[in-house]
Amino acid sequence: MRPRARDLGVRIGDDPTGTYNAITDVPGVWVGHRTLIRDEPTVARTGVTMIVPREGAIWTDWAFAGVHIFNGNGEMTGIPWLTESGMLGSPIGITNTYQVGLVRDALEAEAVRLGVRGAFFLPVVAETYDGWLNDIRSFPLTATDVEAALEAASSGPVAEGNVGGGTGMICHEFKGGIGTASRVVETDGGRFTVGTLVQANYGERHELRVDGVPVGRMIDAEHTPLPWPEEGEDGSIIVVVATDAPLLADQCRRLAQRAVVGLARAGGTGSNGSGDIILAFATGNHLPSDVTGIRDLRMLDHDALDPLFGAVADSVEESIVNALCAAEDLTGFEGRTAHALPIEALRQVLEKRS
Amino acid sequence: MRPRARDLGVRIGDDPTGTYNAITDVPGVWVGHRTLIRDEPTVARTGVTMIVPREGAIWTDWAFAGVHIFNGNGEMTGIPWLTESGMLGSPIGITNTYQVGLVRDALEAEAVRLGVRGAFFLPVVAETYDGWLNDIRSFPLTATDVEAALEAASSGPVAEGNVGGGTGMICHEFKGGIGTASRVVETDGGRFTVGTLVQANYGERHELRVDGVPVGRMIDAEHTPLPWPEEGEDGSIIVVVATDAPLLADQCRRLAQRAVVGLARAGGTGSNGSGDIILAFATGNHLPSDVTGIRDLRMLDHDALDPLFGAVADSVEESIVNALCAAEDLTGFEGRTAHALPIEALRQVLEKRS
Amino acid sequence: MRPRARDLGVRIGDDPTGTYNAITDVPGVWVGHRTLIRDEPTVARTGVTMIVPREGAIWTDWAFAGVHIFNGNGEMTGIPWLTESGMLGSPIGITNTYQVGLVRDALEAEAVRLGVRGAFFLPVVAETYDGWLNDIRSFPLTATDVEAALEAASSGPVAEGNVGGGTGMICHEFKGGIGTASRVVETDGGRFTVGTLVQANYGERHELRVDGVPVGRMIDAEHTPLPWPEEGEDGSIIVVVATDAPLLADQCRRLAQRAVVGLARAGGTGSNGSGDIILAFATGNHLPSDVTGIRDLRMLDHDALDPLFGAVADSVEESIVNALCAAEDLTGFEGRTAHALPIEALRQVLEKRS
Amino acid sequence: MRPRARDLGVRIGDDPTGTYNAITDVPGVWVGHRTLIRDEPTVARTGVTMIVPREGAIWTDWAFAGVHIFNGNGEMTGIPWLTESGMLGSPIGITNTYQVGLVRDALEAEAVRLGVRGAFFLPVVAETYDGWLNDIRSFPLTATDVEAALEAASSGPVAEGNVGGGTGMICHEFKGGIGTASRVVETDGGRFTVGTLVQANYGERHELRVDGVPVGRMIDAEHTPLPWPEEGEDGSIIVVVATDAPLLADQCRRLAQRAVVGLARAGGTGSNGSGDIILAFATGNHLPSDVTGIRDLRMLDHDALDPLFGAVADSVEESIVNALCAAEDLTGFEGRTAHALPIEALRQVLEKRS
Repeated sequence: MRPRARDLGVRIGDDPTGTYNAITDVPGVWVGHRTLIRDEPTVARTGVTMIVPREGAIWTDWAFAGVHIFNGNGEMTGIPWLTESGMLGSPIGITNTYQVGLVRDALEAEAVRLGVRGAFFLPVVAETYDGWLNDIRSFPLTATDVEAALEAASSGPVAEGNVGGGTGMICHEFKGGIGTASRVVETDGGRFTVGTLVQANYGERHELRVDGVPVGRMIDAEHTPLPWPEEGEDGSIIVVVATDAPLLADQCRRLAQRAVVGLARAGGTGSNGSGDIILAFATGNHLPSDVTGIRDLRMLDHDALDPLFGAVADSVEESIVNALCAAEDLTGFEGRTAHALPIEALRQVLEKRS
Repeated sequence: MRPRARDLGVRIGDDPTGTYNAITDVPGVWVGHRTLIRDEPTVARTGVTMIVPREGAIWTDWAFAGVHIFNGNGEMTGIPWLTESGMLGSPIGITNTYQVGLVRDALEAEAVRLGVRGAFFLPVVAETYDGWLNDIRSFPLTATDVEAALEAASSGPVAEGNVGGGTGMICHEFKGGIGTASRVVETDGGRFTVGTLVQANYGERHELRVDGVPVGRMIDAEHTPLPWPEEGEDGSIIVVVATDAPLLADQCRRLAQRAVVGLARAGGTGSNGSGDIILAFATGNHLPSDVTGIRDLRMLDHDALDPLFGAVADSVEESIVNALCAAEDLTGFEGRTAHALPIEALRQVLEKRS
Repeated sequence: MRPRARDLGVRIGDDPTGTYNAITDVPGVWVGHRTLIRDEPTVARTGVTMIVPREGAIWTDWAFAGVHIFNGNGEMTGIPWLTESGMLGSPIGITNTYQVGLVRDALEAEAVRLGVRGAFFLPVVAETYDGWLNDIRSFPLTATDVEAALEAASSGPVAEGNVGGGTGMICHEFKGGIGTASRVVETDGGRFTVGTLVQANYGERHELRVDGVPVGRMIDAEHTPLPWPEEGEDGSIIVVVATDAPLLADQCRRLAQRAVVGLARAGGTGSNGSGDIILAFATGNHLPSDVTGIRDLRMLDHDALDPLFGAVADSVEESIVNALCAAEDLTGFEGRTAHALPIEALRQVLEKRS
Repeated sequence: MRPRARDLGVRIGDDPTGTYNAITDVPGVWVGHRTLIRDEPTVARTGVTMIVPREGAIWTDWAFAGVHIFNGNGEMTGIPWLTESGMLGSPIGITNTYQVGLVRDALEAEAVRLGVRGAFFLPVVAETYDGWLNDIRSFPLTATDVEAALEAASSGPVAEGNVGGGTGMICHEFKGGIGTASRVVETDGGRFTVGTLVQANYGERHELRVDGVPVGRMIDAEHTPLPWPEEGEDGSIIVVVATDAPLLADQCRRLAQRAVVGLARAGGTGSNGSGDIILAFATGNHLPSDVTGIRDLRMLDHDALDPLFGAVADSVEESIVNALCAAEDLTGFEGRTAHALPIEALRQVLEKRS
């Protein structure tokens, strides 16, 4: 079992984490993975991750949400209605680039199965590209895999690294994947939890920093080879931010934008080939789908948001490091290997600089 | 006294108007004009119009608001914070293109005078260009004029046509200016008023339509000369939408966007030279500036907005016709004359088509 | 064979049409439909329409493009990269709401089949909802249908009404579907063609206007029944705008926004349930996918765009009327019938008002 | 004379700087300051900075430009037309919050004086708040000061720290102000320069990092007191990015967005009270105002932008550090003092961590 960033002494920011230091620390937020690692009939190193708010009741008890795009070389379905209404009404899927459509329509089918009525048949599914380790051109996922990811969704600790949508991902030219973290903050309106989850698949090696330390420059490429002959970015990151604070949609968009701070501090620059898309949702208001007329809401005042902004930045930065710490060496399509971030070397580098 | 559109039998849409068929039908919304028509020391045909929400308490009891830009060849200050926070915290000024800055800084000075504290020192002032009738290069307005417009602000009937910021404006190549209208609508969340005010300075003559009738093509240019030798658009329209419905900022933006429907039906196409900027605000929630922490809000559900959308479209369309009906022939800079829409000819054209 | 709007004497705007009065008048733009009308194993009244720029070479010779959303209760995949890069690199699909994903992934598969390399594996597919006539919950389309639509794509006249993605659509409470039109305009930079295609599925009956005449209020609901017991909007419109003018992406967005003018004049108000999404692309610049470094471009100056703006508004308005004229009575899911706009009644109403 | 960041051995990124390591390294870009430090009749610690592209010919030879807003609690005039047209047609002013209007209208007057014709009477002026050191409520600047800043504009080294619009600013709770830097990069389309200039007035002390080193946490507040009793952000940053690369407007927006990377690495989190607005312009295409019809352009392909993205991030980060290095202790309104970043302590901290 590889350590998480905290186990290595990494402390990003001053706020405490939630119980699991995971997006599931936000009450009611579940995560489910379906991981496909097999060599027949085609080489599959891919999967689906589902973030399921409100213990699955999100279909009929919507949540305010907002999107920020740092670089748009990627896909997230559902953006028009998210932006227009500010409301999220489905689980959030993350998968590979070629099968966003499959996952999206499978969520339509799930809504039909559940007998969901109303406007939210516009599901939210995002992607990053795993075609280096995964034979993406064989379209390995099926609707059954999507159902399995939904079924697997639960609270508690979240598996990280080579799991779910993150199975075949590469980040800062180490093996990447899923990572998560959380923060608990005090605001003028009370104590709230911020949780984040990333599917990390971006970045050149020399750009990687851990809490400011230029780790990527300090880990020998001979010791841990690049996946390809020379450095060169090709990838993306999807970030999901959750909070139990009573935020409006505009405020979710503001939180989403702060994910860029964490990403930038970890070494992301939003390179041209990157689809860096961030979705934030807030469960602090309940938006039952059968209400017509007036809804009663609460709003944490803008002036009280700074602790949440900082928490998003810190939690995203740590989620990326967690993804790198958890991911293990993986060999896949055409015999290619992506090497994990070497934990011992990382530990030494961090100690040297503290 | 020239008739308003309704006096000519024009009925746009099915909803009733408010008491004054004006933006001031929204409770607490005041309008004040300062009109400058003088020939010395320079030829001034300009002014300032102030829309003052909450009987002037807007400085410390903010309102949700949103902006939509149909064509951005114009200026409205304050957009970054309006967009970020979704809150309006100052009166809204409308004036000529060259003196937006003066009016904006004068609102800063007013905030200082009033001892306003807090974030909203980012006032909202918009403009259209009156340099054809007004010697705009002489910068005729002063801070005193801005104060006078604020002081003049009141509820009740609103002067239209050649007044305030609309003094020197030209619309569909007739004399334009300020126009206003309102609607009262029933929604699933109760009865609400929508009021709109335009500073109309856009459009070619042949495009003008009144409730679908191509009036602009039917009024003889020999009878009522164009202001210039041949048709050619050069201008803008500023639209302010007010409602007492409890809307969030996102919903204000949605309302603002529906102003384009009314503008399009009246003959606007958002030509390249046009600054077609729309601001909508909603007074149904109170946002006292001294609240920190949690605000309690109400939100009219998105599903209930359609009557408001229709009301905005209808009221904006009628506001434009009202501006044209109220404006009178005006001669100004370098002896130029803009002719009013001829009421008798309009009446005949409308009767012919009914 | 039902007449088109022009056959009824409708003339929207002053510009001439192209040869076919269709989006295919823009050189190189092809349209293909796959129509599914069958009662077994489930009641299918649906399909796919493909707009294929550059005679299919769009995969490797991209085009500047831009999106405008009038109301976002709908889906169009590919928006993040369209917005980030301003470039379109795939055919554009239009289909039903539940199967956007299928069509989107089928375009990925097509790219794989064609051996396309590079960034544009983010296909553009939009939808409107046909679940009233189509048993949408049976997900009737397959990847083979998508291939068939691509294969069917050609230049020349475009089938309208109950075809392709428009098969099961309802517009202004008459039978709706696919409509198209075009305009040829003179600008300061030369003569250009604007073509538009709509999948029209929006609007209440009483709002329908044809060239300003309130046709929807004048056609007796007893003579031509509503599809449902009483008026009530539920639907969307997708608009595709094509031009051969050398426009940049920003300018495509400006053209897309002018589609709202045509939609508003026809009776659209962007109701809450509507997904009114517009994509505009311009083929006047070639953007080969294998260029690195510097591209040489031409740009029609902003000041020269007004004729194109007008052409988009007029062509969209006519496309909607053409969809209504072409669509025929259709009975589908659960025995429901949507009645076509009655041509004779329309003719009489228009004559009465001219 | 205080050292710049480079003089202290700070090396951010791998690219070389231009000659002056300043925004003026982009050919034709001038900077002019007007600094107001006086105690009578009121305590003025304020000013205006003017960035003047194309050696002043920007009025009639426009440049593609784009804006990104990281947090909108600030003002920048001119955004609607910048966004709509993608073109910059005036010098860019930066000043204090209350006098944005004055500076903006003074640029209108300058355009009149110069006899500029055409669309660009929508000048671009931004602000940050200096009311802690400057008696901002006395509105000390006049139009003459704006003219002086324009007149002072020149190429070559740029004064930093307590000058121009930066005179009264505070950054990371040290004395802030104006800072600048540049990078020269190789791309697939040739060698280009990126220059940046900031007016830095944001941030809490403990957040400050210099090339990853948490300097703000390591400099003793007893040694260098905070300006106020305890930590608490209140401020903003305006960033101007210039390049000679042939970029389109969309690409300028992409560059502007990368300024957030540099800001985040230096310790910015876009706090609620911050107006973090970034304008990027590119002089590689000439856009003469008298062209109608077709413009010939060049575009550096998106795929070639990564070196520019990195350069913007690095140059903005260094500009902020340069502002802090250059600024000196300043005492102003009501006897308050903002202390400069102590150079010796900084040097020691950096050495300790290298």
